[in-house]
Amino acid sequence: MPRSELLETFPNPYPDRAYEIHMDCHEFTSLCPLGGVESDASELALLKGGAPDFGIIRVTYVPGERCVELKSLKLYLWSFRDAAVFYERAVNRILDDLNAAVAPRWMQVVGDFNVRGGIKSVITASVGSRDTQSKV
Amino acid sequence: MPRSELLETFPNPYPDRAYEIHMDCHEFTSLCPLGGVESDASELALLKGGAPDFGIIRVTYVPGERCVELKSLKLYLWSFRDAAVFYERAVNRILDDLNAAVAPRWMQVVGDFNVRGGIKSVITASVGSRDTQSKV
Amino acid sequence: MPRSELLETFPNPYPDRAYEIHMDCHEFTSLCPLGGVESDASELALLKGGAPDFGIIRVTYVPGERCVELKSLKLYLWSFRDAAVFYERAVNRILDDLNAAVAPRWMQVVGDFNVRGGIKSVITASVGSRDTQSKV
Amino acid sequence: MPRSELLETFPNPYPDRAYEIHMDCHEFTSLCPLGGVESDASELALLKGGAPDFGIIRVTYVPGERCVELKSLKLYLWSFRDAAVFYERAVNRILDDLNAAVAPRWMQVVGDFNVRGGIKSVITASVGSRDTQSKV
Amino acid sequence: MPRSELLETFPNPYPDRAYEIHMDCHEFTSLCPLGGVESDASELALLKGGAPDFGIIRVTYVPGERCVELKSLKLYLWSFRDAAVFYERAVNRILDDLNAAVAPRWMQVVGDFNVRGGIKSVITASVGSRDTQSKV
Amino acid sequence: MPRSELLETFPNPYPDRAYEIHMDCHEFTSLCPLGGVESDASELALLKGGAPDFGIIRVTYVPGERCVELKSLKLYLWSFRDAAVFYERAVNRILDDLNAAVAPRWMQVVGDFNVRGGIKSVITASVGSRDTQSKV
Amino acid sequence: MPRSELLETFPNPYPDRAYEIHMDCHEFTSLCPLGGVESDASELALLKGGAPDFGIIRVTYVPGERCVELKSLKLYLWSFRDAAVFYERAVNRILDDLNAAVAPRWMQVVGDFNVRGGIKSVITASVGSRDTQSKV
Amino acid sequence: MPRSELLETFPNPYPDRAYEIHMDCHEFTSLCPLGGVESDASELALLKGGAPDFGIIRVTYVPGERCVELKSLKLYLWSFRDAAVFYERAVNRILDDLNAAVAPRWMQVVGDFNVRGGIKSVITASVGSRDTQSKV
Amino acid sequence: MPRSELLETFPNPYPDRAYEIHMDCHEFTSLCPLGGVESDASELALLKGGAPDFGIIRVTYVPGERCVELKSLKLYLWSFRDAAVFYERAVNRILDDLNAAVAPRWMQVVGDFNVRGGIKSVITASVGSRDTQSKV
Amino acid sequence: MPRSELLETFPNPYPDRAYEIHMDCHEFTSLCPLGGVESDASELALLKGGAPDFGIIRVTYVPGERCVELKSLKLYLWSFRDAAVFYERAVNRILDDLNAAVAPRWMQVVGDFNVRGGIKSVITASVGSRDTQSKV
Repeated sequence: MPRSELLETFPNPYPDRAYEIHMDCHEFTSLCPLGGVESDASELALLKGGAPDFGIIRVTYVPGERCVELKSLKLYLWSFRDAAVFYERAVNRILDDLNAAVAPRWMQVVGDFNVRGGIKSVITASVGSRDTQSKV
Repeated sequence: MPRSELLETFPNPYPDRAYEIHMDCHEFTSLCPLGGVESDASELALLKGGAPDFGIIRVTYVPGERCVELKSLKLYLWSFRDAAVFYERAVNRILDDLNAAVAPRWMQVVGDFNVRGGIKSVITASVGSRDTQSKV
Repeated sequence: MPRSELLETFPNPYPDRAYEIHMDCHEFTSLCPLGGVESDASELALLKGGAPDFGIIRVTYVPGERCVELKSLKLYLWSFRDAAVFYERAVNRILDDLNAAVAPRWMQVVGDFNVRGGIKSVITASVGSRDTQSKV
Repeated sequence: MPRSELLETFPNPYPDRAYEIHMDCHEFTSLCPLGGVESDASELALLKGGAPDFGIIRVTYVPGERCVELKSLKLYLWSFRDAAVFYERAVNRILDDLNAAVAPRWMQVVGDFNVRGGIKSVITASVGSRDTQSKV
Repeated sequence: MPRSELLETFPNPYPDRAYEIHMDCHEFTSLCPLGGVESDASELALLKGGAPDFGIIRVTYVPGERCVELKSLKLYLWSFRDAAVFYERAVNRILDDLNAAVAPRWMQVVGDFNVRGGIKSVITASVGSRDTQSKV
Repeated sequence: MPRSELLETFPNPYPDRAYEIHMDCHEFTSLCPLGGVESDASELALLKGGAPDFGIIRVTYVPGERCVELKSLKLYLWSFRDAAVFYERAVNRILDDLNAAVAPRWMQVVGDFNVRGGIKSVITASVGSRDTQSKV
Repeated sequence: MPRSELLETFPNPYPDRAYEIHMDCHEFTSLCPLGGVESDASELALLKGGAPDFGIIRVTYVPGERCVELKSLKLYLWSFRDAAVFYERAVNRILDDLNAAVAPRWMQVVGDFNVRGGIKSVITASVGSRDTQSKV
Repeated sequence: MPRSELLETFPNPYPDRAYEIHMDCHEFTSLCPLGGVESDASELALLKGGAPDFGIIRVTYVPGERCVELKSLKLYLWSFRDAAVFYERAVNRILDDLNAAVAPRWMQVVGDFNVRGGIKSVITASVGSRDTQSKV
Repeated sequence: MPRSELLETFPNPYPDRAYEIHMDCHEFTSLCPLGGVESDASELALLKGGAPDFGIIRVTYVPGERCVELKSLKLYLWSFRDAAVFYERAVNRILDDLNAAVAPRWMQVVGDFNVRGGIKSVITASVGSRDTQSKV
Repeated sequence: MPRSELLETFPNPYPDRAYEIHMDCHEFTSLCPLGGVESDASELALLKGGAPDFGIIRVTYVPGERCVELKSLKLYLWSFRDAAVFYERAVNRILDDLNAAVAPRWMQVVGDFNVRGGIKSVITASVGSRDTQSKV
């Protein structure tokens, strides 16, 4: 399963200013839950027919006291590669893990997934309110 | 007729959060009602001149307690393949069946159908209010 | 002249829901009024120099108790083929005939006509108010 | 000079309904005023160096009791071919002539002229208020 | 049926030069043969269910001694409006009629028809050889 | 299985001219062979998990003595709706059936199928030689 | 009628090199021959119903000893404004006049005219051979 | 320095109507201030390394009693060719000169300059209020 | 580290007018912090594996008493070339340095960075309020 | 100066086959030679006004016995960051260094540099012959 402990942060260099950070990861991949059962035994899952999923993860946030370190975010997203999860869980899990790591004023995560079985899925979740004010 | 019993659901992993799920199915097909009469005896309909219809079904919803399992949605939409239904019924039926299955906070279904007799049709229906709030 | 008796309807399968139906007909054709006089004696008109007109008819409506049957709409629009009418009358006549046939909550008809004499024309008319509410 | 007597009208077939008519004429041409002096002695102007101007005239209106007959509008716009007029006068003159001919509820005329001396010009004028209500 | 006697020609002003004339007619319409039987009793055909066909006719030719007069070509193509013909006959008939009228060095006619029953058709026919030489 | 007896033909109105007919059918659908076994028991196949396939069938031919009637071609292609066939068989079967029906001078059939499992397939087959000469 | 005496030329500064010059005039206008009769009595023609024509003239040439002076070309093309000519004559006349003025190694004139009666026309004529060699 | 005395005006033919005039000049050029010092000794500046600047000047205004004559505007904008001015001054100077010349109800000037040192600049300034009312 | 002393300013030539200046720098480059540690010892950083970063810096502001001199802005942005900084610091630092240098009424800085590790980042920060009024 | 010792290679796994490898580096940057003198004392150069250059380096080659290791190529190209070189030298130097490292059958290097002083430069150099034959 995704390893949130990979996420590293650094102090927001401008914590009093309400500014916005946007990141697009075009290379997200996970596994389809086998028989509707989520799992992190990926090798088994793939052998038994759990198909790989591909998509784009879009993160936008107004930082609070800390920021996400970019390389650690990349490693964290890579850790979904062997997890068999529903799209809904993946997007909300990323939101929760990032929220726990940096406690933003506001954060939105969008999962924009490739066509599967002729169906395209896009999941959007957020925490906090975007209309935050600078303290300065 | 479409078989709503094919729809499977799983518990919304984040029921307290008002997040949005969007799905596009580009390979929807059903049959045109023969002589204006809807029917599920597809083979008969096709032989007697009931033409196949093709279109895109777009579903967007804010989940409540449960989510639609993607593969079961695909199978459910496949079950229209042999049904002779008006566009208006198809779109509203899909909305009702999905609504009954997952009881979303809000859901919209759009049927974007191919040209028939030189005429293109788009049907849009929804239940609930989109401006739902997260409980967290 | 256009034959509104060709329009057939069927009961709106979901009359309590305020949903929207949009239809585009890209193959509308009628005849230009000869000497500014509208007429339905098409053969005469064409021989004497009344030019054919071509355009797109776009219909959008929120149905009330009944819906327009698609094939009958096609036949109805075909019945303008031999009529010599001004654009303004054609668009408003289609709106009136459809309005009389299905009594929608709201309906808009747009006539988007091809260039004539170096001039392109678009006519837009509507009845009712778009902001209708579902009863459910 | 433009000959407003060429404009013909016909009774608005639906005078109680506030609907909209839009017409684009892509083939408008007139002459540049020679030495800044407007004139209708076109041959002289052209020989002495008054350059031809080209542009698009866009007319949008909500009709009152009468509508502009399309062919007569074409002939009227052709009558600028030999007139030497400023863009500003051309656009406002067209608005005034059409306004006088059909007394619309609202009308806008846009003159979208080709580049002259490296400069592109667009002139926009209107009469009445667009937010008119249907009487039905 | 199409009336080839409507075609008028004028002497090619430059008969010794092998130059090329291309014309596109975007507003061609005819009727679908009823029960596979071609006919020119259009009103009957339309009432009994013969659907109108729409398409683009593209003519390209290297003129010989005579050229097609543009307005007469328009009137000639309009004369298909009430004819029930197969696409194949329409395209070849136009080629034969134009060929008989102007005896070009080379001529190609393409019929690019709108989708019917989910199928798009394009028919291409030609006479003569395109690689003709100027005499000058 | 596809029903070639649905194909109807009519005499080529211009059999001595080598002209070309092209048809695109954007709404072809069949079923994926279940367990790699082709079948025409579609209902069974679909229930057991045989997925529907979608694609475009493109036919181009130089007619000989006869032409394909367009509506019958549509009905013939519809008859694949309940057949479970490999792409390769579908394309070659269509070519064989059309070839048997109209004996063209040359014919090509292309099957341009939607993505399945992340893979897009295009199959092309032909009979005869395209470089046929007109007899006139 | 067009006044070829307006064309001015200047010595080709590099007569030994086979280089290419291309010019597009987007504001060409002339009058439609009235009753199929060409004329230069424009005012009469326009009043009696001869419609203005609009188009683009594209000239490409490999110069010989002389080049066309650009402003004089503009004035020359303006002189078609009051002439009633067929498209075929206009294009060939421009080619002849330019050819006489500058004796190019090769020259092509394309007349790309606006839609008239639903038909678009493009005329292409040339003199000389494009594959000329530089002398250096 | 720019010569505002070149600007000529003519009486607004429709002074009581609040209509809008827009002009784009795509061929504006001036010189970069040498060593940050603005100057109008252009020849010297260019020799010493002051680079030419290029850009688009966009003027939009609602005229009052007078309008800008187009050719004089062109000549006025040409007079910046030898001036070494900051972008900020150029845009505001043009606004002030035009404002002084025609006293518009509202006017906006945008300077959209080409990349310099890898940096693209756009300057926007205006006087008056756009929401002016017609007196008629 | 970036050298704000490179920034030069000049008096705003029109300090009483609230106009807007926009600048895009497409050639911004800095270094990635090595091991998450920011530094200005670039050579060391690069040798040890700190990758170069590339992006676009977009600055928009309403000037107060002074404007940024364009060439000095270019030199200032160049001074990030050898600095190892997080994106978040770079954008906010640029905003702070420019704000200190020219004290604008309002200023926004956007850092639009190239893909790194498959992730694209965009940072947006601002000071002041955009809705400032002209004093004139 | 660029450090060719950073380039690493690995054995071509298919040395008998003439296949082609293409690589684009969109983030190449070096410094402009100061006063026309090339140098690798970058800090000095930058301070004295040597501007940074940006561009795309495109490498295409048919490998011989060895291939370029991708990460080492990136590091090698990074080593131009502090070098002040002419475009012409940069492109040829890269070609020479890569050629020395992998001895390709054929190799082409293109330097596609950003606009400087309003001029865009593209430099193309190659070694060997592209029409090499496979040995198998």
